[in-house]
Amino acid sequence: MPPAFRQNSTIVRFHREVLPFTRTVPSTPLLDHLPGDSASAASPVRPLLKGRQTRAAILDAALTLASHNGLEGLSIGLLAEVTGMSKSGVFAHFGSREELQISVVREYHRKFEEEVFRPALALPRGLPRLRTLFDNWVRRVSVEIDSGCIYISGAVEFDDRPGPVRDALVTMVQTWQNALDRAIRAAVDEGHLRADTDVGQLLFEIHGLILALHHDARFLRHAGAETRARAAFERLVADSVPTRAGRAG
Amino acid sequence: MPPAFRQNSTIVRFHREVLPFTRTVPSTPLLDHLPGDSASAASPVRPLLKGRQTRAAILDAALTLASHNGLEGLSIGLLAEVTGMSKSGVFAHFGSREELQISVVREYHRKFEEEVFRPALALPRGLPRLRTLFDNWVRRVSVEIDSGCIYISGAVEFDDRPGPVRDALVTMVQTWQNALDRAIRAAVDEGHLRADTDVGQLLFEIHGLILALHHDARFLRHAGAETRARAAFERLVADSVPTRAGRAG
Repeated sequence: MPPAFRQNSTIVRFHREVLPFTRTVPSTPLLDHLPGDSASAASPVRPLLKGRQTRAAILDAALTLASHNGLEGLSIGLLAEVTGMSKSGVFAHFGSREELQISVVREYHRKFEEEVFRPALALPRGLPRLRTLFDNWVRRVSVEIDSGCIYISGAVEFDDRPGPVRDALVTMVQTWQNALDRAIRAAVDEGHLRADTDVGQLLFEIHGLILALHHDARFLRHAGAETRARAAFERLVADSVPTRAGRAG
Repeated sequence: MPPAFRQNSTIVRFHREVLPFTRTVPSTPLLDHLPGDSASAASPVRPLLKGRQTRAAILDAALTLASHNGLEGLSIGLLAEVTGMSKSGVFAHFGSREELQISVVREYHRKFEEEVFRPALALPRGLPRLRTLFDNWVRRVSVEIDSGCIYISGAVEFDDRPGPVRDALVTMVQTWQNALDRAIRAAVDEGHLRADTDVGQLLFEIHGLILALHHDARFLRHAGAETRARAAFERLVADSVPTRAGRAG
């Protein structure tokens, strides 16, 4: 088991608990091999709790910075400035800029899971859960109007920059898309959506609504983008529900 | 009339000739006040033709660079390196990095107009023209899989960076969205789409398909994203055509 494995418990939970839907869980080998919590390794004598708190505080500042300036706008120097720490202090927690960027991607993913996925578990499996996932996603993107979604900005920043940061981003986005895919399949299984629903197509179109919302609200500053996204989602669902003639199943 | 006005003839044509649809043309005051062709002003003794050719060559290289690294990845120094010119030579054509970025946005817009809009004029007004616009747009985004759409990456890069580059980008994207809006309205006027079509909603959803295509093909490297985008467009149109019962008009 790679040393970073404990770091990934959140990710694993993302698969196992939150969306134990119809498909088997894809392994996340990229994550298993990502640099882990090198902070404790770098400073084994520092009290563990304090070290974790400091790391969490730096990570929090890094997440805020990245939400505004993008992952490429992050640097150890800038973080030191913002947190009032020394560069070597920040460096001790995140051995490199790349490791810092990957940690931010993971932290974003953890929050995304907490805010978008976990609350949906309270809803019944199928369409109610799918609708809540979308609703939470829209609310998250709307909250982020002032800061930006790292998944969306990261996709543009790293689409042609191969390397571990891109790999981490792709893994996270793909994990989220797989989870949404399973949520749609569950809605089909439950008979809430027609048996002939093209799951991948529906996923593609739902994702497009979120991207258009992010673009119009954040870049064009259009009012009403959120309403448009929600209306489109409801129409997509309405087009996929079983007809009264009983095409379900 | 501001000195930059001649520079904007392409943009003006974009409005007047290409899509002289139902709505009045919005003025583009931002563009009128953008820095113009400072090259001739900076070097009045250089033969005009040669100056223009050099400027075009630099711009071409800048566009390629920006398509890969983003507008923020552009610099006078990097361009000098790529074109084999001196920094001062490049500087003479684009007085500042900001002016260079704006020129790249304009050049992208010009090409976009040429490849996406102009060919659509050959099609009859209404749904045939709208469909061709979408088709050309999809093809352009697909061509750009290896380089990236400056509208899309620029929106993410500059969504919270106020200034003239953001203003230029917003103006261009808004111009394109206005044109598409008029194309949809024309399809309604011609009776190809229902009279109660929510034009803004349809525009929002069509744009979402392009964003999802760009994301999935370019970032996730999913095969089949283009097919998904086209299928979704056709379903959107099918949902908006007049029913046989004659709801049109």
